[in-house]
Amino acid sequence: MKICQVERPLVATNRIPGMEHKHLQVVRDGSALAVAVDAVGCIPGDWVICVGSSAAREAAGSKEYPSDLTIVGIIDRWPPEEDQAPESERGRG
Amino acid sequence: MKICQVERPLVATNRIPGMEHKHLQVVRDGSALAVAVDAVGCIPGDWVICVGSSAAREAAGSKEYPSDLTIVGIIDRWPPEEDQAPESERGRG
Amino acid sequence: MKICQVERPLVATNRIPGMEHKHLQVVRDGSALAVAVDAVGCIPGDWVICVGSSAAREAAGSKEYPSDLTIVGIIDRWPPEEDQAPESERGRG
Amino acid sequence: MKICQVERPLVATNRIPGMEHKHLQVVRDGSALAVAVDAVGCIPGDWVICVGSSAAREAAGSKEYPSDLTIVGIIDRWPPEEDQAPESERGRG
Amino acid sequence: MKICQVERPLVATNRIPGMEHKHLQVVRDGSALAVAVDAVGCIPGDWVICVGSSAAREAAGSKEYPSDLTIVGIIDRWPPEEDQAPESERGRG
Repeated sequence: MKICQVERPLVATNRIPGMEHKHLQVVRDGSALAVAVDAVGCIPGDWVICVGSSAAREAAGSKEYPSDLTIVGIIDRWPPEEDQAPESERGRG
Repeated sequence: MKICQVERPLVATNRIPGMEHKHLQVVRDGSALAVAVDAVGCIPGDWVICVGSSAAREAAGSKEYPSDLTIVGIIDRWPPEEDQAPESERGRG
Repeated sequence: MKICQVERPLVATNRIPGMEHKHLQVVRDGSALAVAVDAVGCIPGDWVICVGSSAAREAAGSKEYPSDLTIVGIIDRWPPEEDQAPESERGRG
Repeated sequence: MKICQVERPLVATNRIPGMEHKHLQVVRDGSALAVAVDAVGCIPGDWVICVGSSAAREAAGSKEYPSDLTIVGIIDRWPPEEDQAPESERGRG
Repeated sequence: MKICQVERPLVATNRIPGMEHKHLQVVRDGSALAVAVDAVGCIPGDWVICVGSSAAREAAGSKEYPSDLTIVGIIDRWPPEEDQAPESERGRG
């Protein structure tokens, strides 16, 4: 799975019926952008786990769902604290 | 899914029967070109969502369809306006 | 699907029975080489459409065929003429 | 399969039910980070074999499990000794 | 499929039961290393065809086998002779 950051929702009014009305999010994977089906309910800025390959279909709701990238979880804390600025400067709760 | 821009239709008269007569489009994904089955009816210049992996098959019409990249939606507005030139210069409708 | 150019046939006498006697072609995808099962009958120099992912299996003949890249069509004209040298120099028929 | 090194566990409290309570690990694949389902029980620093594609699902426990990367084995010795510093400096057991 | 060169066997004593006792090989794909299930019996230095995606599973022996890269054939002659040193210097048989 990939670690991505949610950028913004994506609207595509003209789409195939199989996509139903599930929410799509533009996610950033390093320097690249991709579109993922949102299966958890996330907001811009969230760091999320995106699953690809055939697993993205069932993760999006059913074996027939046409997704190759689905957001399956929101990471509790990312980047990890040891890679961040000192704790005293960040006001960790 | 990937965000691609449609370049032009692609004609391949000599192809396997399984591909039927569905339309193929050359799409641009960043600096790379790829070929996608058009499941929505788009025209050159459209910004589209392309689904890959095994999901591309059903998105193209059936589980047996030999596609690994299928256009499943046309994006309403891309790139997003905050990333574009000022509104006054673009004559947004 | 990818746009590739056929380089040459590939011979692998020692291979698993599941590959049967189908022809394999070395294809060029930009600067990279790959091996594809030839489902249309092409010759070196042809510009072809190659399908990957799980769709490559059925495109090669059956759901059990061990292919992850199958040539499914020969492109009628590539690169497109507007990207080529002036018509007068090419003797277009 | 890929050769990766385990970095640290990843916690995502808000995730889809299908992911159950299996452990997730952040793994390093060269310069890139990815998230893998841990099917063997490994610790940070371990060099592991990660399987992707549709095989990651069953490797994670069931055909329905939403994984596209699963740790399926811990490599006994990596990097191989001939690529390492002289034995006398490493105290090989 | 990819053209890879076999580097060395890989040992992973602690692995999931589904991997059984099949041999694993470290293969080189250009500058990258990967791990492949050996379905043909090859030795270091062999140039081989590796199949990925879902086709790697059946190529490794069964639809349930957790492989995403399987060696399915040994290439008879690689690189091709026209890309090599002059014949007189190579003692071609």
